[in-house]
Amino acid sequence: MKITKKIEKALAEERCFWSFEYFPPKTETGVINLYDRMERMYALGPEFIDVTWNAGGSSSDVTMQVCTTAQSVYGLETCMHLTCTNMPREKIDIALRDAKAAGIQNILALRGDPPRGQENWTKCETGFSYARDLVKYIREEYGDYFCIGVAGYPEGHTENPDKEEDMQHLKAKVDAGANYIVTQLFYDVDLFLDWEKQCRAIGIDIPILPGIMPIQSYGGFKRMTTLCKTFVPKEILDDLEPIKDDDKAVKEYGVKLAVKMCNTMKDAGIRGFHFYTLNLERSTRLILEGLGFVAPIELARPLPWNPSLAKNREKENVRPIFWKNRTRSYILRTEAWDDFPNGRWGDARSPAFGEIDGYGFNLKYPADECLQMWNHPQTEKDIFNLFAKYCMNELNALPWSDSPLYPESDVIRTRLADINSKGFLTINSQPAVDGAPSTHPIYGWGPKNGFVYQKAYLEFFVSPEALDNIITKVSSHPYITYYAVNKQGDLRTNTQGDSPNAVTWGVFPGQEIIQPTIVESVSFMAWKDEAFELWNKWACLYEPESQSAKVIQNIWDTWFLINIVDNNFKDEHAIFTIFDDGTTSPPASR
Amino acid sequence: MKITKKIEKALAEERCFWSFEYFPPKTETGVINLYDRMERMYALGPEFIDVTWNAGGSSSDVTMQVCTTAQSVYGLETCMHLTCTNMPREKIDIALRDAKAAGIQNILALRGDPPRGQENWTKCETGFSYARDLVKYIREEYGDYFCIGVAGYPEGHTENPDKEEDMQHLKAKVDAGANYIVTQLFYDVDLFLDWEKQCRAIGIDIPILPGIMPIQSYGGFKRMTTLCKTFVPKEILDDLEPIKDDDKAVKEYGVKLAVKMCNTMKDAGIRGFHFYTLNLERSTRLILEGLGFVAPIELARPLPWNPSLAKNREKENVRPIFWKNRTRSYILRTEAWDDFPNGRWGDARSPAFGEIDGYGFNLKYPADECLQMWNHPQTEKDIFNLFAKYCMNELNALPWSDSPLYPESDVIRTRLADINSKGFLTINSQPAVDGAPSTHPIYGWGPKNGFVYQKAYLEFFVSPEALDNIITKVSSHPYITYYAVNKQGDLRTNTQGDSPNAVTWGVFPGQEIIQPTIVESVSFMAWKDEAFELWNKWACLYEPESQSAKVIQNIWDTWFLINIVDNNFKDEHAIFTIFDDGTTSPPASR
Repeated sequence: MKITKKIEKALAEERCFWSFEYFPPKTETGVINLYDRMERMYALGPEFIDVTWNAGGSSSDVTMQVCTTAQSVYGLETCMHLTCTNMPREKIDIALRDAKAAGIQNILALRGDPPRGQENWTKCETGFSYARDLVKYIREEYGDYFCIGVAGYPEGHTENPDKEEDMQHLKAKVDAGANYIVTQLFYDVDLFLDWEKQCRAIGIDIPILPGIMPIQSYGGFKRMTTLCKTFVPKEILDDLEPIKDDDKAVKEYGVKLAVKMCNTMKDAGIRGFHFYTLNLERSTRLILEGLGFVAPIELARPLPWNPSLAKNREKENVRPIFWKNRTRSYILRTEAWDDFPNGRWGDARSPAFGEIDGYGFNLKYPADECLQMWNHPQTEKDIFNLFAKYCMNELNALPWSDSPLYPESDVIRTRLADINSKGFLTINSQPAVDGAPSTHPIYGWGPKNGFVYQKAYLEFFVSPEALDNIITKVSSHPYITYYAVNKQGDLRTNTQGDSPNAVTWGVFPGQEIIQPTIVESVSFMAWKDEAFELWNKWACLYEPESQSAKVIQNIWDTWFLINIVDNNFKDEHAIFTIFDDGTTSPPASR
Repeated sequence: MKITKKIEKALAEERCFWSFEYFPPKTETGVINLYDRMERMYALGPEFIDVTWNAGGSSSDVTMQVCTTAQSVYGLETCMHLTCTNMPREKIDIALRDAKAAGIQNILALRGDPPRGQENWTKCETGFSYARDLVKYIREEYGDYFCIGVAGYPEGHTENPDKEEDMQHLKAKVDAGANYIVTQLFYDVDLFLDWEKQCRAIGIDIPILPGIMPIQSYGGFKRMTTLCKTFVPKEILDDLEPIKDDDKAVKEYGVKLAVKMCNTMKDAGIRGFHFYTLNLERSTRLILEGLGFVAPIELARPLPWNPSLAKNREKENVRPIFWKNRTRSYILRTEAWDDFPNGRWGDARSPAFGEIDGYGFNLKYPADECLQMWNHPQTEKDIFNLFAKYCMNELNALPWSDSPLYPESDVIRTRLADINSKGFLTINSQPAVDGAPSTHPIYGWGPKNGFVYQKAYLEFFVSPEALDNIITKVSSHPYITYYAVNKQGDLRTNTQGDSPNAVTWGVFPGQEIIQPTIVESVSFMAWKDEAFELWNKWACLYEPESQSAKVIQNIWDTWFLINIVDNNFKDEHAIFTIFDDGTTSPPASR
């Protein structure tokens, strides 16, 4: 969606809005960590995110990769930066084509400043001379497809002392077809407000978003303001002087200063704020909290999972529950799908999932971190204890879960820990929800004035002996359905027919029932390959003949993965009754 | 579905089952009344119904019409009788082809008795000589497509005194491919049970359903038993003798006798009973009640409306709410659809409804009955009072509703009457339901262990002045959505987008959410033509320039039809608050 559309909506709803800028990390690990950060920061409700362009290095490819992933995997409306003076025309064409193919509809068109800290940059012969040429070119080539942003310089461009001319350059960019303006960083609010008035006075009537860079460290702040020739009011320098060696104090000051600046601008009628995050999370979050900004409900949780914004997935509004903790893998394994299920999984043709091998399928953390977390388990009981510790938040990750348990699982946390310690190794779960308001802080999603529901769900590995006991228990329970499968693919189930089971759904004014999460056999069979393979990956951390490898490989080879749905969503705890009896416990060690 | 499948299911569930036989009425009105009766008797839960064949007259066309309508409009599993000796081969071919096209999968193959009471019948040269030839022919031509029933004669065939040979004839029919047997009527249970034992003894192992004909009148009973040479035990004749002139007493005796006979057979292990209803309802209902037979839940209400069993509608499980009181019209106006929505109306292409003119669109009752019911209204207030009386069950029908209010509307009956008397002329409604068990006697539908929901719904005609007040009220209500339209098609709505609104849905174990009833604009626009035209039909009952015609025509010309959904299904009565204030009342008369 175009950023201008989102801005219009926010203004119509009379609320403030904000956006985050990231830069492409230099290492693969950095990129993975940025994704995590972006996913977490999604909850802060930015209208969009920017990713900067680094034409000089290989990082422009990384820009494209980060943009595509943000848009398709994390469902963040993404704006890709694009510079022109340092880019050959063909590279610009490729970048625009790829962006469009990925469903990206927003470009920040820049002239091409030297990369921060690098003064010696190469001007490109076949590129454009000015940002306005790039804007014009994009409009010519792509008509109205892209929403185009341009940069504004409240203090004038560093390379041009003539501020009047600078203003005319901006006007030319707008006249060439720009849709909105993001400003260079500044620390003098009055200066910005004056400049904004001048912009309006000469007829610039598109949205102008002030760029806010929270001070993260004294050294960084000095370097940046020197580089950009940013004017820093004396009182800020005075405030910083006594604390300049205390990084924590500087950060805190940076947060307070940004809150103060934004509040002043808010009082002057400014509604949108663009944050230069420097790929950091904390300051931006604290500033938003300080401003009392909360994510608009519809933005934060349109569905219980973050919908991809990739172009081919527009209609997608149902997913199997299995990949809840591995969204990226799900997106990648369904990348080749032409058509995504809309509302009902049953309407989609039986989906073919991509092979797990093709996607760098692996443990998320480096081997040494994994070993530190999981140590060298000697018995099955050691494994059980790791799972139980994860449930109690004493362990940050397991091969199946990169991050701690979701808050929604708080209500079942201790019960989960209990069954894990008995050898029912849970890798996914959700509690029952019987018509919570769609604005509920934990369970809510979708538009306001709706009601959301969940069937209780548990997915766990279980030994073959314990499986028989579980199935016997389940068979006397009128509301429970299950699928169980081992590594070899032997499937056991008590469901009849191939109908998918909706386990999360919502009822909203004027709509059909939305049922975004389901359990069904075809996708479960695709998921089980991945779920079992993670045991193998875990075993590979150890010497082949070691006791740890043997214990894990035995589970990998012989245990079953089972998922259980309690179809009576009005009974919160019934699903755990199948574990109540001691007879279902597997032997503690073998 | 094949009758034998249904019998297998009933036996697997260890329950008794029953079926009803009807004959094609001689007049168009008779046919319409039979449809009403069949629809009501659906609730008695027959596994299937039979319609007899009358090859001699034009009524074989009526047989086909009744079979098709029972199958497609009323969703009754239908078995068509077909006779052979009195039918040319081509006519048999046409009948079988048409039956298959209509989704009928059950044929009762008969030799072709003379029509009841007509001894002089014409044997047809190009037909078959015996029922077994017809069975064989159907198998040859259609393979396993049809489930084929044949007749059994516990007392021997009237034309054949050799009972042993009779039994061999039956065996031949079974060997030719018959799937089940329905017997001729009888009144001596022991005789039937002996005969059934003999059947089993010679290797007939398909289901045998005893045919039960409740005694409806002494004269009819005597004629029938004489014609069929049925043995009547002396005690029955003795019992009837003193009451033979008292029709009511004879009917009551007939019910008691049938209950006694069935109970005896039940004790002997018989599970299925075929009732010759003679197109009458009361006796059959009383017998089933006397036997303590209740309709199996899943059979009685698979969906909140009776699904059509027409072949092309197999996937249909969602319908607009508007035709709730005019199912036949809906089925006919959607007859040309290739594809029916399954689960989500939104997935179907925008449907084109057939014109209302093509389907003998009319008031259901003859003009004199209508005038008797509705009299000669002189003012709008007179009309309001008719609507109010209908709500209070003091009037049996209105042009929009052929039969009294549904029991589910009992909880809102007095409120409905109240708003009708104020000029909000309701023609459709449903109360809110917040998760009733799927076995609930009034609201329940679908498989057991499920929960069903409804959003409160009201549809009514309203004067243009009152409409403005209603819309003002609604606009301050966060949960209410509406569509309003006049005869000319001016549409007003507060809904956004074209999304259909699910107003009835159910949550069941191991399934996606089923949402069988929706409100949306395209079908509402098709429905409004029909709803407005009924005012015209009503006006046509009166002289063109009469006061009654003028009052009704003015409503037809100027009023709006509005439907209102309260999307908060957890609040049962909120929908009526929009009528609470006196300001929304239209003038009582103009």
